[in-house]
Amino acid sequence: MPVYKAPLRDMKFVAFEVFDVEKNWSASPDLQDVSRDLVEAILDESAKFAEQVLFPLNRSGDEEGCRVENGQVFTPAGFKEAFTQYAQGGWIGLGADPAYGGQGMPKTVTVMSDEILFAVNPSFALYPLLGIGAALAMSQHATPELCHRYLPKIYAGTWSGTMCLTEPHAGTDLGIIKTRAVAQADGSYEITGTKIFITGGEHDLAENIIHLVLAKLPDAPSGSKGISLFLVPKFLVNEDGSLGARNAVQVGSIEHKMGIKASATCVMNFDAARGWLVGEVNEGLAAMFVMMNYERLSMGIQGLGASEVAYQNAAAYARDRLQGRSARGAQEREKMADPLLVHADVRRMLLSVRAHNEAARCFTMYVAQALDQAKYASDPAERKAAADRVALFTPIAKAFLTDRGFTACVDAQQVFGGHGYIREWGMEQYVRDVRIAQIYEGTNGVQAQDLAGRKVVRNQGAFVHGYVEEVRVLLNSMKNEPGLDAFTLPLARALERLQEATTLLLQQAATDADATNAAAVDYLHLFGLTTYAHMWALMAKAAWPHQQEEAFYADKLRLGAYFMERLLPEVDQRLAAVRAGAAAIMSFPASYF
Amino acid sequence: MPVYKAPLRDMKFVAFEVFDVEKNWSASPDLQDVSRDLVEAILDESAKFAEQVLFPLNRSGDEEGCRVENGQVFTPAGFKEAFTQYAQGGWIGLGADPAYGGQGMPKTVTVMSDEILFAVNPSFALYPLLGIGAALAMSQHATPELCHRYLPKIYAGTWSGTMCLTEPHAGTDLGIIKTRAVAQADGSYEITGTKIFITGGEHDLAENIIHLVLAKLPDAPSGSKGISLFLVPKFLVNEDGSLGARNAVQVGSIEHKMGIKASATCVMNFDAARGWLVGEVNEGLAAMFVMMNYERLSMGIQGLGASEVAYQNAAAYARDRLQGRSARGAQEREKMADPLLVHADVRRMLLSVRAHNEAARCFTMYVAQALDQAKYASDPAERKAAADRVALFTPIAKAFLTDRGFTACVDAQQVFGGHGYIREWGMEQYVRDVRIAQIYEGTNGVQAQDLAGRKVVRNQGAFVHGYVEEVRVLLNSMKNEPGLDAFTLPLARALERLQEATTLLLQQAATDADATNAAAVDYLHLFGLTTYAHMWALMAKAAWPHQQEEAFYADKLRLGAYFMERLLPEVDQRLAAVRAGAAAIMSFPASYF
Repeated sequence: MPVYKAPLRDMKFVAFEVFDVEKNWSASPDLQDVSRDLVEAILDESAKFAEQVLFPLNRSGDEEGCRVENGQVFTPAGFKEAFTQYAQGGWIGLGADPAYGGQGMPKTVTVMSDEILFAVNPSFALYPLLGIGAALAMSQHATPELCHRYLPKIYAGTWSGTMCLTEPHAGTDLGIIKTRAVAQADGSYEITGTKIFITGGEHDLAENIIHLVLAKLPDAPSGSKGISLFLVPKFLVNEDGSLGARNAVQVGSIEHKMGIKASATCVMNFDAARGWLVGEVNEGLAAMFVMMNYERLSMGIQGLGASEVAYQNAAAYARDRLQGRSARGAQEREKMADPLLVHADVRRMLLSVRAHNEAARCFTMYVAQALDQAKYASDPAERKAAADRVALFTPIAKAFLTDRGFTACVDAQQVFGGHGYIREWGMEQYVRDVRIAQIYEGTNGVQAQDLAGRKVVRNQGAFVHGYVEEVRVLLNSMKNEPGLDAFTLPLARALERLQEATTLLLQQAATDADATNAAAVDYLHLFGLTTYAHMWALMAKAAWPHQQEEAFYADKLRLGAYFMERLLPEVDQRLAAVRAGAAAIMSFPASYF
Repeated sequence: MPVYKAPLRDMKFVAFEVFDVEKNWSASPDLQDVSRDLVEAILDESAKFAEQVLFPLNRSGDEEGCRVENGQVFTPAGFKEAFTQYAQGGWIGLGADPAYGGQGMPKTVTVMSDEILFAVNPSFALYPLLGIGAALAMSQHATPELCHRYLPKIYAGTWSGTMCLTEPHAGTDLGIIKTRAVAQADGSYEITGTKIFITGGEHDLAENIIHLVLAKLPDAPSGSKGISLFLVPKFLVNEDGSLGARNAVQVGSIEHKMGIKASATCVMNFDAARGWLVGEVNEGLAAMFVMMNYERLSMGIQGLGASEVAYQNAAAYARDRLQGRSARGAQEREKMADPLLVHADVRRMLLSVRAHNEAARCFTMYVAQALDQAKYASDPAERKAAADRVALFTPIAKAFLTDRGFTACVDAQQVFGGHGYIREWGMEQYVRDVRIAQIYEGTNGVQAQDLAGRKVVRNQGAFVHGYVEEVRVLLNSMKNEPGLDAFTLPLARALERLQEATTLLLQQAATDADATNAAAVDYLHLFGLTTYAHMWALMAKAAWPHQQEEAFYADKLRLGAYFMERLLPEVDQRLAAVRAGAAAIMSFPASYF
């Protein structure tokens, strides 16, 4: 049986000791009710529900999967009851606007409960997540009338939401979608087209499903400038909020996938379905990006949640499984063999996974804090600076945390040997489930292009410059403690590599249109590694004064040093790849491949 | 529908242009009948059968899987017919001793047909493979009587074979197995115990199944020095070779796995089953290692086969799928979008996979040639040198090719975006199937320990020294062509890293018992990367004189340069990890994990 305990101590260390999130909460008029006591109580409840209700459904959900019958999708046994409980507990609206029934918790709180949710049951997590993302886009772009009609029901979990972008011929390239919207006399629209890969497009968890659909008006400009966003409910909603007629939107089929099998991935057919415009005509992508940016951080958190649960199980196995003897001679003579943990290579795998997890957790809090500042800070300049930081780090949070989370799950699976390949141990499911996070909500290659192109080259490195300055300030603040050299020196070195890579990126972009995309993924990994080093420096700074008090702090320093020494040197390889440029890559004719 | 064409041109380039295998064939009295014409005809037939018969069964076999009913295992539809055809075509005995009905082809031939087999259907491939491995171990250790009774039937595919090592509590650590063998008056033994993870332990493809089983005699020394090897047939064999009574060996259940679902992975119960000793009492591991070393190279080839078929499909998808526009502006204006291949990052993924595949193919031939020399060379010193080279490279062939093959399959899957995650495209199956190759036949961590401990530290780097000298001779032979600097300089640099890492390994081992295992995996990857650079240098040397004649040769040089520039720099990171030593890793108490 797989095990999982929410890493609450580590979360609190990051929130309250590394970042001092309370200070930000108390500085914001909107967050006066948020306190450490309240948040710890929320986390305890979140962990309890996740461990006891959602975690046991993870394996059974994978085995059973979803099925479609006569246009209805059935989720695996237990999902409906769990979803109802989850909704009734107020979890869906945890971070939502109190004006729509939400609990108004900042991202620095939900980032922790989201990790727990993704660790215990990623398939389940997607159902509420999509609704929250849709609601967020609506809250910023839909009319107050639409918001008041739909959002409270979504936050209450009575209804759920989806995000309908992809079409069979159009994934990343939304400019070529074919779904059409025709204006009606009453102000509504008729939506016609087929969408694929729609997470939670149809299911049995909620009474209604609210689809946010990208479509084009007949006279829309071609390409991405002609895309509008529409709200299309499964059931039309009467004036009094009760459910009316069934709308002309139907599930065509569900996909058979590598993983997240308890998440219904649907083909959705819109056949002159009634919908309502969200935001302005032809500006649908802007509204959709509110949702996408929210999801992208969530996907990064999915990568972290997966590698955390994978770590915990691999560590437990390595403690229990007796196999071989220590290189130093038998350690537990009375047993037929020593536990796996005596082997340095097993520890290497576990420490690598854990060093990733702890840096990733710190990084999600770092981004969450920027999101909160962008939303709650009183100074507009501070809000702008924080929003820029979020823009810079969103693709890294999505792609780096999922690429590394996948590798971490594979490493954790490897600790199990042959048993890692067997379904009953659960490790192979973590690998299959987390793999999607590198693909959906914009593949990690697309994220890398967003980072290198839009967030670096387009502003001539301004965002990076701001970030580098921030890290320099940190380095300066640490230089009086020589014991922290093991953190500051490697971080400073990685930061130089990042600056060099940024300069290269800008230079190359000036002369070779393909260069940015050729360097993008390696640049993103170089950036991510540097950011992890930054996170480890922050954690080391916070742990340093307490290292004599408790092993917890001394261990933080040790694991951080492990990251710096064994994992961070990858930056050089990434820099070499950025330096290589695009010419060689583009020199092969298409027929070569 | 997935596509696959055996890469015959690339195979022939490696065999006949890079290595000139014909020269070795004609030098050996045993291989006088082996000619290029014959081998090309064999490869053509192998490719035809694999593409037409075995490849279509790969997807359906995965969907259907194996099932067990009343002690019988049923393979998926089509497998039995395909196995019969495969056996009748003489493929199982292709590399086997003609004295037992084999065709006597050297490893430099079968290495190519094996790649094709693993590319089209790894689950299928394991059924004949295990029989061949068992037969090989028998041919070297069993009595002539046993050999003559069993081997011709195995090579004919009338019977098949297995390898019964693992027990529920004993995987890598075979010293603690509990299966017992009791000598009988007639010279046979009674075998009792439970074995798990037995590939092809029971199935419906052959009339009899010959198990090679590790067990202990009652008075055997403890640990790995007390293990004997026994032949235990499913049906006893009469004096005249006909099948007799059913032996007391039964399948208990089959495993539900992440992949290779058409390969029956069985729990086997031996309940006083009759068996015969193979080799000497208490020397079973030596006999078993004949089989294991054979399998280990095969597993590496599995990694290569998987990444080759994954590459071909990703390349086809990237050519066909229209999505987005080239960074240089639209390339195919008449279409709604450009093919994926215009994007540098898509090319980066494809080229990385292909650069791995071609180096891996060259490397398998390099090892195959050493295997042939160890077997066929007339000079004993030459045989010994070749055997040492094989010993050094077996763990690298197994672990490096499967680790890199897995990453390559994941990259190829990534090219498909969301479609890569959907079962019908087949890419996710390649990832699931190849994952086992990093685990079975000794996990890749165990391989790394074999390399670093047994093949390097134990002989004080003598094998490595011999290899380094060989590469130096090659570098010398290339130094008069400055155009080859793009290959020789990076190779020389990597070779220095390898030497430095080897020195570190030896120094650390002298003072820290855990150091070798702490460094093992990184050392193996450093070694593998250096060897790939070596292979690319060999290929570049062979292609160089012909680069004006045909794009094929110029492309080889281009892809090799890509490897050297973008992928080889990883050696520095690996060296840094080796340098880090074991102290930090071992400093965490067990309770920390």
